[in-house]
Amino acid sequence: MPRVITAFSNPLVKRVQALRDKRHRREAGLFLAEGLRILTEARETGRLPQILFFAAASARHPLVLALVAAVEDAGGEAIETSEAILSKLSGKDNPQAMVGAFATFNTALDDLDRGSSAIWLVAERLRDPGNLGTILRTGDAVGAGGLILIGDSVDPFSTEAVRASMGALFTVPLVQTTWAEFLPWLRAGPGQLVGLSLRTENNYRTAPYAAPTFLLTGNEAQGLPAEIEAACDLLVKMPMLGKADSLNAAVATAVMAYEVLAHHASAKDA
Amino acid sequence: MPRVITAFSNPLVKRVQALRDKRHRREAGLFLAEGLRILTEARETGRLPQILFFAAASARHPLVLALVAAVEDAGGEAIETSEAILSKLSGKDNPQAMVGAFATFNTALDDLDRGSSAIWLVAERLRDPGNLGTILRTGDAVGAGGLILIGDSVDPFSTEAVRASMGALFTVPLVQTTWAEFLPWLRAGPGQLVGLSLRTENNYRTAPYAAPTFLLTGNEAQGLPAEIEAACDLLVKMPMLGKADSLNAAVATAVMAYEVLAHHASAKDA
Repeated sequence: MPRVITAFSNPLVKRVQALRDKRHRREAGLFLAEGLRILTEARETGRLPQILFFAAASARHPLVLALVAAVEDAGGEAIETSEAILSKLSGKDNPQAMVGAFATFNTALDDLDRGSSAIWLVAERLRDPGNLGTILRTGDAVGAGGLILIGDSVDPFSTEAVRASMGALFTVPLVQTTWAEFLPWLRAGPGQLVGLSLRTENNYRTAPYAAPTFLLTGNEAQGLPAEIEAACDLLVKMPMLGKADSLNAAVATAVMAYEVLAHHASAKDA
Repeated sequence: MPRVITAFSNPLVKRVQALRDKRHRREAGLFLAEGLRILTEARETGRLPQILFFAAASARHPLVLALVAAVEDAGGEAIETSEAILSKLSGKDNPQAMVGAFATFNTALDDLDRGSSAIWLVAERLRDPGNLGTILRTGDAVGAGGLILIGDSVDPFSTEAVRASMGALFTVPLVQTTWAEFLPWLRAGPGQLVGLSLRTENNYRTAPYAAPTFLLTGNEAQGLPAEIEAACDLLVKMPMLGKADSLNAAVATAVMAYEVLAHHASAKDA
């Protein structure tokens, strides 16, 4: 049976709320995800929250009941609570009906099967959590094999990144690694490393993509460092017709990913 | 000569800070834009802030001097201030070196020259300011004729939208209108209305785009209403290979816009 907690001063409320902070996430090895849809999706991928707070008002919803039962069966804690507490946990005025605290996870490079997909996303020193989540969401849509985060990127378990991913954090394998580890791993098997650059004449529409394609996205402000650009098998450019020679990093990643997807699909048909 | 203001209690500081709030923006007819790069871009498009706060530390930079002189020549007010005040005005810990308060603007539908570009962006009840700004930025990159905002969309002059636009708010013509006004205007001349939909078999890669193409983006949560979908000349779908049948709205807009751009470019070559 779920406990009922409605006191702001409850230590469990404080502990879960603290997960909005990176240091506490790291110490606890836990992160927050919100919403019935996303938590149900997480459950379908085999991930359950260790602690689940849900609104009393939603307690009779069949999917909520199923989630509560699954959490308790797995030894986790399900807690019925008020909208005010959910608001406090999520930091939002109109909170979702539930907030779960999940164990963080990380896939190792060696556990990736590079033959499992023709597209892989690689992001280097990504700074913005919204961009990271959006790239994961795009990765889900194009069927990417995974997202490989290189270097000092923003925390993929930040509440904002999880939110922007719309559940894709649970469906797209995620690797956090370094350039020094990634490059030798990549070179130990098939894999074309593709970077966007202003210093090339290769149009992204007609470039010779080869599967599996590893699409690199650089830091929002600085782009790719020269060393990483030099290691790419292919540099491509996109038309920039405006005053600014730049696109949002998640947008550029998506345009490239859909281009590579179409390229590989037509190669298969040919 | 610029005034120097370093007191948090100064009424002008309070007035400009209040522009982070929508109601105050509407009342004052002013909005905030930050950063030397964006303010210089604004100046190049003929827009100067009525009030300019700049950091004492940046006061000798030639572009800052030029901007201060231009603001004062135009009868505006340039104010040298501290980083602490700039932080307060922008709501950011590491503020840009300058914050300007600009008059809001709005282009009328009848002032658009639909022959001036082969791509136009149309967004309907867009909710997220980051998405709006990102769509403007994409509009700049693809050379869109403008962004037409339909219905009750987020305020394009919100600080977050202006930030995400990276200056494109100043370079991409912006119309705020209603569906009831937009549709008759569209039908009074050439223009293909294209919507993304899950209820069509038209693949977005092979669809018969015709210039000028008006690309519709729907509300983040609900997509396009049936009435608007029914008014489209062409519905297309993008592959969604993952668990979620959705993409971020700004991402979907960008993938479509680059597709239409490539389509029109190859039609021109043929």
